[in-house]
Amino acid sequence: MRSFASDNHSGVHPKVMEAIARANQGHALAYGEDSVTAEADALLHRHFGQHIDTYFVFLGTASNVLGLRAVARSHHAVLCADTAHINVDECGAPEAMAGFKLRTVPSRDGKIEPRDLEQFLADVGVQHHNQPRVVSITQSTELGTLYTPDEVRALADFAHGHGLLLHMDGARLANAAAALGLGLGDISGACGVDVLSFGGTKNGLMHGEAVIFFDARLSTEFRYIRKQNMQLCSKMRFIATQFTALLTDDLWRENAMQSNRMAALLAEKVRDLPGVRITRPVQANAVFAVIPQRAVAPLQACYPFYVWNHLTGEVRWMTSFDTTPVDVDGFVEALRKAVRD
Amino acid sequence: MRSFASDNHSGVHPKVMEAIARANQGHALAYGEDSVTAEADALLHRHFGQHIDTYFVFLGTASNVLGLRAVARSHHAVLCADTAHINVDECGAPEAMAGFKLRTVPSRDGKIEPRDLEQFLADVGVQHHNQPRVVSITQSTELGTLYTPDEVRALADFAHGHGLLLHMDGARLANAAAALGLGLGDISGACGVDVLSFGGTKNGLMHGEAVIFFDARLSTEFRYIRKQNMQLCSKMRFIATQFTALLTDDLWRENAMQSNRMAALLAEKVRDLPGVRITRPVQANAVFAVIPQRAVAPLQACYPFYVWNHLTGEVRWMTSFDTTPVDVDGFVEALRKAVRD
Amino acid sequence: MRSFASDNHSGVHPKVMEAIARANQGHALAYGEDSVTAEADALLHRHFGQHIDTYFVFLGTASNVLGLRAVARSHHAVLCADTAHINVDECGAPEAMAGFKLRTVPSRDGKIEPRDLEQFLADVGVQHHNQPRVVSITQSTELGTLYTPDEVRALADFAHGHGLLLHMDGARLANAAAALGLGLGDISGACGVDVLSFGGTKNGLMHGEAVIFFDARLSTEFRYIRKQNMQLCSKMRFIATQFTALLTDDLWRENAMQSNRMAALLAEKVRDLPGVRITRPVQANAVFAVIPQRAVAPLQACYPFYVWNHLTGEVRWMTSFDTTPVDVDGFVEALRKAVRD
Amino acid sequence: MRSFASDNHSGVHPKVMEAIARANQGHALAYGEDSVTAEADALLHRHFGQHIDTYFVFLGTASNVLGLRAVARSHHAVLCADTAHINVDECGAPEAMAGFKLRTVPSRDGKIEPRDLEQFLADVGVQHHNQPRVVSITQSTELGTLYTPDEVRALADFAHGHGLLLHMDGARLANAAAALGLGLGDISGACGVDVLSFGGTKNGLMHGEAVIFFDARLSTEFRYIRKQNMQLCSKMRFIATQFTALLTDDLWRENAMQSNRMAALLAEKVRDLPGVRITRPVQANAVFAVIPQRAVAPLQACYPFYVWNHLTGEVRWMTSFDTTPVDVDGFVEALRKAVRD
Repeated sequence: MRSFASDNHSGVHPKVMEAIARANQGHALAYGEDSVTAEADALLHRHFGQHIDTYFVFLGTASNVLGLRAVARSHHAVLCADTAHINVDECGAPEAMAGFKLRTVPSRDGKIEPRDLEQFLADVGVQHHNQPRVVSITQSTELGTLYTPDEVRALADFAHGHGLLLHMDGARLANAAAALGLGLGDISGACGVDVLSFGGTKNGLMHGEAVIFFDARLSTEFRYIRKQNMQLCSKMRFIATQFTALLTDDLWRENAMQSNRMAALLAEKVRDLPGVRITRPVQANAVFAVIPQRAVAPLQACYPFYVWNHLTGEVRWMTSFDTTPVDVDGFVEALRKAVRD
Repeated sequence: MRSFASDNHSGVHPKVMEAIARANQGHALAYGEDSVTAEADALLHRHFGQHIDTYFVFLGTASNVLGLRAVARSHHAVLCADTAHINVDECGAPEAMAGFKLRTVPSRDGKIEPRDLEQFLADVGVQHHNQPRVVSITQSTELGTLYTPDEVRALADFAHGHGLLLHMDGARLANAAAALGLGLGDISGACGVDVLSFGGTKNGLMHGEAVIFFDARLSTEFRYIRKQNMQLCSKMRFIATQFTALLTDDLWRENAMQSNRMAALLAEKVRDLPGVRITRPVQANAVFAVIPQRAVAPLQACYPFYVWNHLTGEVRWMTSFDTTPVDVDGFVEALRKAVRD
Repeated sequence: MRSFASDNHSGVHPKVMEAIARANQGHALAYGEDSVTAEADALLHRHFGQHIDTYFVFLGTASNVLGLRAVARSHHAVLCADTAHINVDECGAPEAMAGFKLRTVPSRDGKIEPRDLEQFLADVGVQHHNQPRVVSITQSTELGTLYTPDEVRALADFAHGHGLLLHMDGARLANAAAALGLGLGDISGACGVDVLSFGGTKNGLMHGEAVIFFDARLSTEFRYIRKQNMQLCSKMRFIATQFTALLTDDLWRENAMQSNRMAALLAEKVRDLPGVRITRPVQANAVFAVIPQRAVAPLQACYPFYVWNHLTGEVRWMTSFDTTPVDVDGFVEALRKAVRD
Repeated sequence: MRSFASDNHSGVHPKVMEAIARANQGHALAYGEDSVTAEADALLHRHFGQHIDTYFVFLGTASNVLGLRAVARSHHAVLCADTAHINVDECGAPEAMAGFKLRTVPSRDGKIEPRDLEQFLADVGVQHHNQPRVVSITQSTELGTLYTPDEVRALADFAHGHGLLLHMDGARLANAAAALGLGLGDISGACGVDVLSFGGTKNGLMHGEAVIFFDARLSTEFRYIRKQNMQLCSKMRFIATQFTALLTDDLWRENAMQSNRMAALLAEKVRDLPGVRITRPVQANAVFAVIPQRAVAPLQACYPFYVWNHLTGEVRWMTSFDTTPVDVDGFVEALRKAVRD
């Protein structure tokens, strides 16, 4: 089975699997006190800056929720796009786990701008309303688009100018950095991001995300937050070693480039198919399109993918680090057939 | 480094690692909709009963907290031993994540009895007090002791007789079953346990625990609870396959027997050492002892272990599935030397 | 000072104050076990039906949040208008206290219809999304409009038809019932409402709201929820007696009629003023209008009122049970002057 | 009916009721922006110090929970006596509303000392345990005893010396101050208390408590916490005016002296009754005693009171601001008869 439903339908990159096997040597201190974790931590510092404070957690939802929880209390508001993963796909974990309120704005292809957020400033100091505290953006976005470094910087400046922080959901940060031809830190901390979820699972790891604080004053109590929120892994070396593999010899970039290229290839090949309309800029590893309703089920029978919006019929096709040109060709052929029949 | 500090200092059993590698074939549906997970689920049913409902989570704290959260609301009380992991070692996750109150009683070597719990029945129906809802016990206990099936059954009868449920923290259920020469279900569901945390991490897995409901009416909404509490793994097959390995050819029992045997061996060898006093019955894979204060640090320099109680000086030595007689001999020799010096 | 800012700027109706003084006789059992509370409870049953279960709390936010908390867990969604008090004016108490997610739809003058809610049904059974559980409406609405009994019934039918419940924020239920010429129960329980916040504070009480369950199976544990959420009043008789006064000799209707009439009078008198545009149907005790920006501050200097929407300049003028024609005349005169100057 | 069950069985002091009636003049700004609230606030500053920051809430449980919530996050621990109201009588509100863990120690007649708390310092910095953050004591205690100013100061010094704060549940602070012949601030802020619940309800108010922060840096966000936790009263003047009455002409002391005197009188009169054994020092307005089991129900039939401990048979008799010598005589006579029969 080859899937275009999500980049988490892929497995584990061979180099990551090798690293896991290598880490399985004898006993090691638990909870991250081991040398394997120290090595991964050092690599994260090399990529994101020496002043960061970083913590591994199991999965992306936790990375987002705990990163936000560290800096926002329940009477705060987190400002984000209506399309944000934290708003749409986390079963209310942000509200339920951290208590704060998400205040959303309609996005443009998954992106927001400072002018979208100005309306919330009227709430500052009014006790009846959650107090704006964090702006949260996703890079690359849930709609497969990218923020340029300038756009991130503008949002950071807006946030900091009003006493807010900037959080980035980087479940696909690697895809963004690869597409922009920049380093991982260049489009996060260097642009003013304060708290980052740096995702690994969608880029070839078995599981594992890193919460990265670019100002260590924000994370003084995070170790307790991680433990209490049930994200402190005991055999930590097996998460850490995956990050070491990912951050060695630019495996992160290689994987991300591959999935980005396959999305571009897919877009190129279907763009002129009759009945297929691409609906979003294809900038990372997702292609959004509208296809004839009758074509959806037959195509899904061959290749899993999601209907993104049941009202508009928009569908999402995602590529992974292990998607191949052969996969794309097969998919395009099946699509051509489904649309034609 | 060989550790006697915790059974989570061990790594991953080779057969489990092989299973992980084997599961890494191509694409698979995420979130447990894959065939690897289905196979593990079937095996759990075979061991625990066909009527169970079961869910994988990442770690033991989550297994406990979510299993309890599924059946207890914030105005409920969970009754447990003061030594319970949920009370001592989860950084307040039960209270913070689920809201309920833990009402504790002093344990006898980690165990409680129905008569310990009668005092809480006076609170039933009084709106100023959390309402008793669940009795939670640990098997094997945090002090390395066992509940016999009759003892579990007596607690279940007490609980059910008063409208309560019985929860079992089975982070080391395998050690208990192996020690008692019984099956995993024989000492849990068959004795009246309603909700079980079945642990894998401490018995040779990389990570992974199963929350098992013996009455599916208790878990109708658990899938949302798991997701919202940040424990829904996307690449689920890599947890599931570990359980398949563990439950195949009685690997669970083999691993548990080994660690139990090593604890027994250790106890036997140190019991008559001058200055060493074993403080708890050695029934599973832990040995508790008091040794001269001056011997602690030198011994820890050779072999990591925890001082369990800083007031009494009691220490804990744990064995793992991969502890060997050579490890034990080395430890005993180091202990002998530390005590003597 | 005479205020048109909110109906909670008014004081306590004289008959309510007399009742309070009368209740201050000697000792009484606390927490609602007294005869004064029993009398109020009986009156609520007479107005709302013999099958109800009812509880007093201190204030409207608590009435809403606890009524919803009783029937929705944190993985549920509460569907409501974007203008709902629970969404806008409770500082995130619903999310923070009960954990669930508010899913909002744009309202038409504060009102919603079943067709607005259909979009949320696609989430049913999908573990990544909060599960729809309650529809919440406000009667009269935050924009001074009314649901007809048929409209409430249609929403109840929709809710019940999809396994959901209907909650009504009745902070101004009396205003609605008076305007519709119906009884309090006629427009709530009789139309299919399952849980009601019946407000007293805004209709002449000092403080006090009643949470009313029209199906007692929904409230079996509510006494613990009320206590734990810090809304169990010790000297309960002093809340209860206020409700007795309100529900005796139709004082509730008299008060509501007066404030409704004054809003109608105000609307009538300003409707044709140059520069004043009434923006919402005036159906209860609020008038919404747009006036020249330069007129706002001078008018507020004479009569407190709120700018409802800083972007559109829409303002809100509310009348109370004790607003008089003289107050209205004074206000209209000040408005005329402010607009003209 | 005359009750010895609780000081909240009493009604409202006449001067307080007069103040309420007086505050009921025309319109006033809501949520504490009115002049009546400003006056009460000024009086609180006069009694407790010019540097305080203070907030009214509805009831004692809220005062405690919100005061603690303001300074403790969910990964913190609050250290208190096992007899503390926050541990025993608030239906788990501290854990459920604020998330932190209560760590309790056995009390001596309701009191704790620094040496009781030293055991918790071993948890500092260990991520598996809630981090000690606040010491909470009750003055006068739940067992009718008093902390001397020196004892409070010793606890404050211990707390501050270890980076903790001191919280005082002062639901009966007036009784303590009156008994000690000191001012309200003398035994709270002046002794190092950081956060105080200053109770009014049990000392002659209808309802109302004040949360007092002795360091305004602790309360910078408390207004949002109060609102979100459903304790922001709209018609605030009616709480505030009660405090003004209580703090004018030392009504607080007069009321407290009366209830204290009546408890002393009661203790004196029953001390030598055969079959009656007073079990706690009588220092405020409560008398604890053991009486023959067979005497309990007959006596309760005449005078409500609580059995404090069903195992030991200990009972509690409380006096109120309006308890009279005639009440005491009647109670003693009924007790004499019940014990004799």
